[in-house]
Amino acid sequence: MENWVTVSPHRMKRPWKGQVEKPEEAVIPRYDPSNSLCPGNTRSSGKVNPQYEGTFLFDNDFPALLKDGPSPPPNSDPLFQSAPAYGACQVMCFHPHSDLTLPLMSQSEVREVINKWAEINIDLGKKYTWVQIFENKGNIMGCSNPHPHCQVWASSYLPNDPATKHRTQKAYYDKHQVPMLVDYVKKELQNKERVVLENEHWVWLVPYWAVWPYETMLLPKRHVLRLQDLTPDERDALADIMKKLLTKYDNLFEVSFPYSMGWHGAPTGEYLQEDNSHWQLHALYFPPLLRSATVKKFMVGYEMLAQSQRDLTAEQAAEKLLSLPDVHYKSRKS
Amino acid sequence: MENWVTVSPHRMKRPWKGQVEKPEEAVIPRYDPSNSLCPGNTRSSGKVNPQYEGTFLFDNDFPALLKDGPSPPPNSDPLFQSAPAYGACQVMCFHPHSDLTLPLMSQSEVREVINKWAEINIDLGKKYTWVQIFENKGNIMGCSNPHPHCQVWASSYLPNDPATKHRTQKAYYDKHQVPMLVDYVKKELQNKERVVLENEHWVWLVPYWAVWPYETMLLPKRHVLRLQDLTPDERDALADIMKKLLTKYDNLFEVSFPYSMGWHGAPTGEYLQEDNSHWQLHALYFPPLLRSATVKKFMVGYEMLAQSQRDLTAEQAAEKLLSLPDVHYKSRKS
Ligand SMILES: O=P(O)(O)O[C@H]1O[C@H](CO)[C@@H](O)[C@H](O)[C@H]1O
Ligand SMILES: O=P(O)(O)O[C@H]1O[C@H](CO)[C@@H](O)[C@H](O)[C@H]1O
Repeated sequence: MENWVTVSPHRMKRPWKGQVEKPEEAVIPRYDPSNSLCPGNTRSSGKVNPQYEGTFLFDNDFPALLKDGPSPPPNSDPLFQSAPAYGACQVMCFHPHSDLTLPLMSQSEVREVINKWAEINIDLGKKYTWVQIFENKGNIMGCSNPHPHCQVWASSYLPNDPATKHRTQKAYYDKHQVPMLVDYVKKELQNKERVVLENEHWVWLVPYWAVWPYETMLLPKRHVLRLQDLTPDERDALADIMKKLLTKYDNLFEVSFPYSMGWHGAPTGEYLQEDNSHWQLHALYFPPLLRSATVKKFMVGYEMLAQSQRDLTAEQAAEKLLSLPDVHYKSRKS
Repeated sequence: MENWVTVSPHRMKRPWKGQVEKPEEAVIPRYDPSNSLCPGNTRSSGKVNPQYEGTFLFDNDFPALLKDGPSPPPNSDPLFQSAPAYGACQVMCFHPHSDLTLPLMSQSEVREVINKWAEINIDLGKKYTWVQIFENKGNIMGCSNPHPHCQVWASSYLPNDPATKHRTQKAYYDKHQVPMLVDYVKKELQNKERVVLENEHWVWLVPYWAVWPYETMLLPKRHVLRLQDLTPDERDALADIMKKLLTKYDNLFEVSFPYSMGWHGAPTGEYLQEDNSHWQLHALYFPPLLRSATVKKFMVGYEMLAQSQRDLTAEQAAEKLLSLPDVHYKSRKS
């Protein structure tokens, strides 16, 4: 993304006397009659959920993007530019049980989530330029419902970050005749310093340019443009590596690990007609925690005004994640 | 900064069932023997603070930037770029009393803080390319000590955000022969929709491109490159408008208002020799709160992966701030 990151590994030595987060609720009931995402329950909009048994997709009752948004008046002044924005917002429950997060679900249940993601990208991608699939997990990430779910915000515009990636990947491709992230994964697999997990089709690593303490990226080994282009084998392997990486994350501080994650792949809508060979599909994980289950990294003053700063190196983060057990702490305890 | 912001004012209607922050400590003692920033106390490094009576500046005991950082090995690969970074980190206490935030200090006390800021920019600017003065206020902003203070991180490099501003202001200046932010203030003063406060020398407004719900900018009316270039009159007027704007902020939710703020002006170090006429000095305020003293705006999934999204328009935020009393809620209550 063309940006620098300030790395200050000596900073972990300072004592922490600042804000401590509330630990996540320890026991989440499998079914809660007052939880609007459980099967059969009524949502705040008055709509009733079906008795779903797998995933469950519905339109967000409070969408940030509307199918018909207002058109702002045109302004020729370069300092006051605005443009209409349309879109669709959906929510997908991963599973009927509120207490089952992705690492605790079976591999075939995770596989169903992956299939659904691919379908959503096809469906909304017919109409919209960008389909952002993302999961906010944990109170600390603004998630207001513990029932495992993700969101989709599809838009008539290419948002800032994907637009930058579109441009930088294109420039790299034009110069080197190979997709940037395909090249990148090849080099990381040679070097190994930042790779945490890999299987036949996928690599999980701490990117060289990571900003959050335990930020990671999940990439296919093959050149893949979009979720729907994944083969059945690649989907199986994705379910496998997702379960493993999320287990490691949970094991890091022995807590249901909070993060925001999402998928980036070639744009859709009008871009479906274009050559997007410079794109490579990947998932991004941004976890806020730094020192423990309750002490996060604050991206504040210097980070908001100047530049991201991290307190441990990417290699230290990878090493730490690598050292963690592959068995979920909850199954070890029971 | 060349980016778009998604504006969804209809979103404030949704109910909030998510995380609620701990309210800030209501009563902060004027002097706390265990607070490392109070006059006469010993800091965790073992150093003892003097019995200071005004501002108090010292070197950060846990600096993120070191005077002699390591030099990373050179790498010719465009995907693995690193560079050495040197710097200095300082802390400035605003006042000997822990219970006095800037809006509660006298105008002449605020004026002393401003003078000190100008001095710091001269001193560290002799050696360093960028002197970032910033204040993290409140637990929610990662501030670990309630004693009113700010920080300074000076660096041998131009950080990402200032580098972007350097480039965009230069491009505007080359095209229009007038500094972008001088032009911008002129237009905002004509339009008035987003201006909240002004006095003879300063304007406080919600920028057209604001990302945080109550994000604001403070700009001089005259073309000024750096803090040290402010005239005595402009410094007096700055102390006046700062006290007023921070009073409005505290009155918004009747709480000591959390934020990160900082100053951006023309770069220093080797840039002192160059023409920086495209720059205009300004302060930025980034407050996290959205709905109340305890419900913040979460910049998570969509914002981290795609684009900033706001839940009220910049004009609505300006109108709200405009409507607030100019007298601090604490003085009204006592
Ligand atoms: O005030 P501190 O403890 O030095 O640190 C605080 O501000 C820094 C600069 O914005 C951040 O990097 C830290 O995450 C935050 O906790
Ligand atoms: O899950 P919600 O309640 O729709 O909303 C959450 O995710 C959104 C998208 O990242 C953010 O804009 C909100 O601030 C956050 O609370």
